[in-house]
Amino acid sequence: MSNVSSGSDCTIDERTTVGYEYDTKVNPTILGDSVTIRAGSTIYADVKIHDYVQTGHDVLIREQTEIGKESIIGTKTVIDGYSKIGKKVSLQTGVYIPSHTTIEDEVFIGPNAVLTNDPYPVRQNVDLEGPTVERSASIGANATINPEITVGERSFVASGAVVTEDVPADTLAVGVPAEFKPLPDKLQGKNDL
Amino acid sequence: MSNVSSGSDCTIDERTTVGYEYDTKVNPTILGDSVTIRAGSTIYADVKIHDYVQTGHDVLIREQTEIGKESIIGTKTVIDGYSKIGKKVSLQTGVYIPSHTTIEDEVFIGPNAVLTNDPYPVRQNVDLEGPTVERSASIGANATINPEITVGERSFVASGAVVTEDVPADTLAVGVPAEFKPLPDKLQGKNDL
Amino acid sequence: MSNVSSGSDCTIDERTTVGYEYDTKVNPTILGDSVTIRAGSTIYADVKIHDYVQTGHDVLIREQTEIGKESIIGTKTVIDGYSKIGKKVSLQTGVYIPSHTTIEDEVFIGPNAVLTNDPYPVRQNVDLEGPTVERSASIGANATINPEITVGERSFVASGAVVTEDVPADTLAVGVPAEFKPLPDKLQGKNDL
Repeated sequence: MSNVSSGSDCTIDERTTVGYEYDTKVNPTILGDSVTIRAGSTIYADVKIHDYVQTGHDVLIREQTEIGKESIIGTKTVIDGYSKIGKKVSLQTGVYIPSHTTIEDEVFIGPNAVLTNDPYPVRQNVDLEGPTVERSASIGANATINPEITVGERSFVASGAVVTEDVPADTLAVGVPAEFKPLPDKLQGKNDL
Repeated sequence: MSNVSSGSDCTIDERTTVGYEYDTKVNPTILGDSVTIRAGSTIYADVKIHDYVQTGHDVLIREQTEIGKESIIGTKTVIDGYSKIGKKVSLQTGVYIPSHTTIEDEVFIGPNAVLTNDPYPVRQNVDLEGPTVERSASIGANATINPEITVGERSFVASGAVVTEDVPADTLAVGVPAEFKPLPDKLQGKNDL
Repeated sequence: MSNVSSGSDCTIDERTTVGYEYDTKVNPTILGDSVTIRAGSTIYADVKIHDYVQTGHDVLIREQTEIGKESIIGTKTVIDGYSKIGKKVSLQTGVYIPSHTTIEDEVFIGPNAVLTNDPYPVRQNVDLEGPTVERSASIGANATINPEITVGERSFVASGAVVTEDVPADTLAVGVPAEFKPLPDKLQGKNDL
């Protein structure tokens, strides 16, 4: 363990690296109070994690990332840097968040869902821009979100869907490619996290 | 390594945690004879693993889980607790098994397949219930199984399918959402594990 | 760390196993010059990794695998052995490469994509044969490639596609099951890696 500045009551398991020095000049990882980092995880330097955040096991969080209060970063989830994760966000197991992604407060992302940031990978030179997942939106298990997509507030992406266009607020996105439908009654409202 | 009771001839690699104390009062991890736990894995307390089980690398097995004799738990597979895995089961790499799931004997689950247990995540308060995968059924690579689904005996879920309804016995489920077809000749019969 | 023969200027992080002895008689892992193996990774014996290769974190590379010069093996990617990876290949995060797979030079594979090698898993006894991904082809995020498939030169498999037939050269494969279309202008040409 190296290059970390942590608040009170943090728990950092064995077999973790917090403050991974990915470059010669870096700032420490900053942990708020009551942060838990579980066994097998690697947190880069230049990451700021606010109070009461918990990670699962084998998590990777890369540089220039900020994670809001009370969020949960699930086992084996990867956040590839230069991203902003809101408060009370729940990323389940095996989620992939590319660089330059914005996840607003109270977002839920299911297991093995994948967000992407490059529309023409290694064919065109474009600025990488990940999706924006707006407040209280949810993304189902194993769904795929294409680059630059916005998933609107309180919307719900079904499990296994591939989202190729912006999802309006309060909308269900389902299928490959995803089609938009009204939210069924049981999925209406905001996330209770 | 801590809080583990193991049988004879077990192999526990370096960089593993067996008996992870997730709470203040827990019972040890119980390993049968000839169990192999490979490098990078974390096994919680209150887990029972029977004889001849082998894990791959970087496996996570959470509390209140039982794994039957001669099963194989592939690299980076996550079993999120409160689940029962039968005998001679083969979970390949990167499989996600949510809590409250039942996997019967001789089941095969392909790489990166995802099972789920929450139909209205963080929108409704319901009891979590994962799928039941019946004896000798198979689930293909990168398939997604919705909550509470039963996959019937000797059935086969094709790679990439998203299963939204119970799959009858001896049936092929294919597509998004999955449609049911008769099993082709080469997929008939039971799993030979 | 054990059983490794490395060139000059290699970087091997803490919490890694290089030269994992999977059997009683094995040859060392051979690393070229300027190879980087990041924290949490496991590299088996009988693996040959050429100059300037970099791995992400928590990578698994199994036996009888060769990885060409300047390739990048992303975080949590698994290469299950008996495979050949070309030069300047980019495997992103969480990719699964089964045994007996051929990846030619300058291939790009997106996050959580899955290649497979068994058409009738545990139902028929057949020789396992993974896909062949030809020079400068790309596979999108969360795509699934069925066994024995060839993805032709400079072709592009869209995110979330499930590929069930050989993809000709210079072709876009999209959907479940994947249909073939001409490459759009912005995806034409070869990968610039």
